[in-house]
Amino acid sequence: MPNVSGRNKKKRVVKIVKIVVDLKGADRPQTELIDGAFRAVRDNEGLFLYLCGDKDVLEEYIEKNGYRKDRIEIADCPQVIINGEDPAEAYKAKPDSSIVRGMSLCKSDPDIGGFVSCGATGAIFVCAMMILGRVVPVSPILLAELKRTDDTPFCIVDCGANVDCRAEKIVDFARMGIAYMKASGVDEPKVGLLSNGAEDKKGSGVVRKANELLRASGINFIGNIEAGDVLEGRADVLACDGFSGNILLKALEGSAKAVISELRRTSGDIPQEAFDRLYKKYDYNSQGGAVLLGTKLPIIKGHGAANAETVYNIINTAYRLAEHGLIEKIKGEFAAAQPLRT
Amino acid sequence: MPNVSGRNKKKRVVKIVKIVVDLKGADRPQTELIDGAFRAVRDNEGLFLYLCGDKDVLEEYIEKNGYRKDRIEIADCPQVIINGEDPAEAYKAKPDSSIVRGMSLCKSDPDIGGFVSCGATGAIFVCAMMILGRVVPVSPILLAELKRTDDTPFCIVDCGANVDCRAEKIVDFARMGIAYMKASGVDEPKVGLLSNGAEDKKGSGVVRKANELLRASGINFIGNIEAGDVLEGRADVLACDGFSGNILLKALEGSAKAVISELRRTSGDIPQEAFDRLYKKYDYNSQGGAVLLGTKLPIIKGHGAANAETVYNIINTAYRLAEHGLIEKIKGEFAAAQPLRT
Repeated sequence: MPNVSGRNKKKRVVKIVKIVVDLKGADRPQTELIDGAFRAVRDNEGLFLYLCGDKDVLEEYIEKNGYRKDRIEIADCPQVIINGEDPAEAYKAKPDSSIVRGMSLCKSDPDIGGFVSCGATGAIFVCAMMILGRVVPVSPILLAELKRTDDTPFCIVDCGANVDCRAEKIVDFARMGIAYMKASGVDEPKVGLLSNGAEDKKGSGVVRKANELLRASGINFIGNIEAGDVLEGRADVLACDGFSGNILLKALEGSAKAVISELRRTSGDIPQEAFDRLYKKYDYNSQGGAVLLGTKLPIIKGHGAANAETVYNIINTAYRLAEHGLIEKIKGEFAAAQPLRT
Repeated sequence: MPNVSGRNKKKRVVKIVKIVVDLKGADRPQTELIDGAFRAVRDNEGLFLYLCGDKDVLEEYIEKNGYRKDRIEIADCPQVIINGEDPAEAYKAKPDSSIVRGMSLCKSDPDIGGFVSCGATGAIFVCAMMILGRVVPVSPILLAELKRTDDTPFCIVDCGANVDCRAEKIVDFARMGIAYMKASGVDEPKVGLLSNGAEDKKGSGVVRKANELLRASGINFIGNIEAGDVLEGRADVLACDGFSGNILLKALEGSAKAVISELRRTSGDIPQEAFDRLYKKYDYNSQGGAVLLGTKLPIIKGHGAANAETVYNIINTAYRLAEHGLIEKIKGEFAAAQPLRT
């Protein structure tokens, strides 16, 4: 058990949430990323971290920097799975990798509320499925949380895990998005369906069918949303297949960055801070990572070029989602779901 | 025949290209849009326009404004097809509408090189198919031309006409895009395939198959392109199904506008001109409209909220495409095409 006695002297009971942090497999070294982990622990008194990395290397770094090891435990993971490795092969061949050992830790301790990593997405996905398994009988998805122009959050589900989908799956994705937004503090999330026109009859065959299913599902469905309207729109959850969601997410981000770069190049008068703030807002990865949803614990994936701040952000996301009972909320959404009909 | 004797006194022979302009069915009145038509004729000495609208109304406006009717002829079209009407019904019921009469004009005069309109897209599509027919045995598409960050043009094919596609169709779309870019002055257009990852194996089933077909097609294919890379990318032609293309196009535009608006709101110091230039760059509709490609003449569609400048721009696009032999180039691409195989 973590030593929290120092913090608990005020007699206030703080519920401890444990998060497993994979520090390997990213572009930058584990000794840089670990700074984000220590910052997260310092800022959240209910947070306990398992850090997966090379024990010797991390211990030496911690000692050199004079970090306190309150609410921190290191899990020695001498192996690493890198991008480009076959995920299923790597899962079998590397039991001592940070991903496999980290996921196994998740399974062994019921107090663990989530897993964060900036490593190989495919391996994370496969290991999560093999070791943790599904929380509900639904394909896991990648969820991205973005900010609208008015700075309120919304999510895109799915944004890449399921590129070929039947309409029924899109309704499942919507339910996972609803649970996520509820865990993020939105009481009755509104669901929109990504399409090429606002009218119900617009869309591919799958999308038109998904529209019918959503209309009959009991979900708070506000209809089709065009890609040009999502940043101004009213939907808290934007449901789509993983291929379209990926196109949407990357186009929104790429276009915003192109405009910001062009203005920076051509309009020297604009203050650097204004640019930086906007750039960050539209760099969805720096906001809190993509969320792998549908396995028995939520998994937050930072991008490969992550730095200590990214790690800090994704740990905070995982902590917040665990604290707000995301997994129970997913179970609740699916338990309450009416059978689909049109 | 138009009166071009005044212009030809210098003995230089100017080839006349005729364009049919539908002035009805848009949000703004025909007497406003017509200003763009007169400006286009003034700027292009080889351009002759058939203006489809209410003859009395237009004649009165022309006389009041002292416009010369050189290289202009009015086709009286007392009827109008509006958005929301069933296109097939409207086609049958309204022979004197600007769309039906305009398309019929296109069919009757071999010197006509294109049709432009800011009216009802569905009706334009249906009437073009019914009256003009296909130029090659391939589904017509909507093509959008955009600018990359370095201001060079590229096109998205299809961006909305074919929401459910087999892989073979995407290859056809690529060929039409190639012909379009050649007519726009790009000698050997590079084709990219929109996908959720740069690797060949990434994508939905249809996209993976399209990748294989493109690799074996003899087309100058540079591989898959992610949505976040299209504005910085090397592809002159971005091939995709109409659903994904629509998501991409609208997301790029919507995100750019959101960023520009936010900067305008929060950074008062930025000169208005810098904003206006950027806004225009990312408002693809103001650049030259969407192009309906695949019928016997190219059709340029401006948005419903078009003003005189939009009409000026879309006439210029139609004129340029006709002058550069777009239709012959489409025939050439398909005549030279190798049979598809994988």
